[in-house]
Amino acid sequence: MDREAIWNIFHAVIATGDTYAFDPRTSREEALVYWFQSDTYTYVAEQNRQIVGTYILRANQPSLGSHVANAAFMVAPTARGLGVGRYMGEHCLSEARRFGFRAVQFNFVVSTNTSAIHLWKHLGFKIVGTLPGAFRHPGKGYVDVYVMFRSLEEAGKE
Amino acid sequence: MDREAIWNIFHAVIATGDTYAFDPRTSREEALVYWFQSDTYTYVAEQNRQIVGTYILRANQPSLGSHVANAAFMVAPTARGLGVGRYMGEHCLSEARRFGFRAVQFNFVVSTNTSAIHLWKHLGFKIVGTLPGAFRHPGKGYVDVYVMFRSLEEAGKE
Repeated sequence: MDREAIWNIFHAVIATGDTYAFDPRTSREEALVYWFQSDTYTYVAEQNRQIVGTYILRANQPSLGSHVANAAFMVAPTARGLGVGRYMGEHCLSEARRFGFRAVQFNFVVSTNTSAIHLWKHLGFKIVGTLPGAFRHPGKGYVDVYVMFRSLEEAGKE
Repeated sequence: MDREAIWNIFHAVIATGDTYAFDPRTSREEALVYWFQSDTYTYVAEQNRQIVGTYILRANQPSLGSHVANAAFMVAPTARGLGVGRYMGEHCLSEARRFGFRAVQFNFVVSTNTSAIHLWKHLGFKIVGTLPGAFRHPGKGYVDVYVMFRSLEEAGKE
């Protein structure tokens, strides 16, 4: 069942406490409520009939800011390095464009999560903001957080 | 009753559609649910026994980001220019410090809202991010939005 697989991935990803702000002890119920909020599209990525990743896509703000999407991604630790994140990222941009969003914004990319930042830059995201010490890293103390932004408009049309 | 006064202010503030992302047609119920969310402190400012402003204060992120507060402010249009916003802003910083927050962050300050930006800068906030075209202004089209941040740590302790 998808929810079971999603919870397993969610739990494994937040357990290390170094990429998401969620309490590593977040319960299954809280996690699934968050991941399946209303007005949120929830996706899973499969490989060999196994769910290896999941992402959510939604408007980042209500009405007058609803043309900018927000998204969050999680890859099963056992499936890292196989391109699942990249595949989901590209799929997300395509879905966001299909829904008519003008841009995708990440509100909270931990600055020490270099592989994610590398991937998002590769997919056209730019760092548009830096939140000083906004994340309490389990090993590194307070570290900066980036706001990243990817326009979906054609060049010159922005 | 406070909720009635808060709704009147909320409704008047969002009606112009030039400072908050809320749909100007947001209902009383939706507004009050938002303004009185769990884990949110809700305040009112009074002048001559009239409620002339209201603000909310809460953690901007869960657990590992919960040391940064978020706040939102609304002043009754009839009470503008009387220092209510500034009074609430100072009160908010004091409350945030009292609760142990390390910083206060505004996620969505519309760049054309110059009086608000002026006030927040005066209270020590800095623009730490710019979201390109993230607000659909009724008269000006897509305009930028700022992320503003105010540390509450002593200088040199950050």
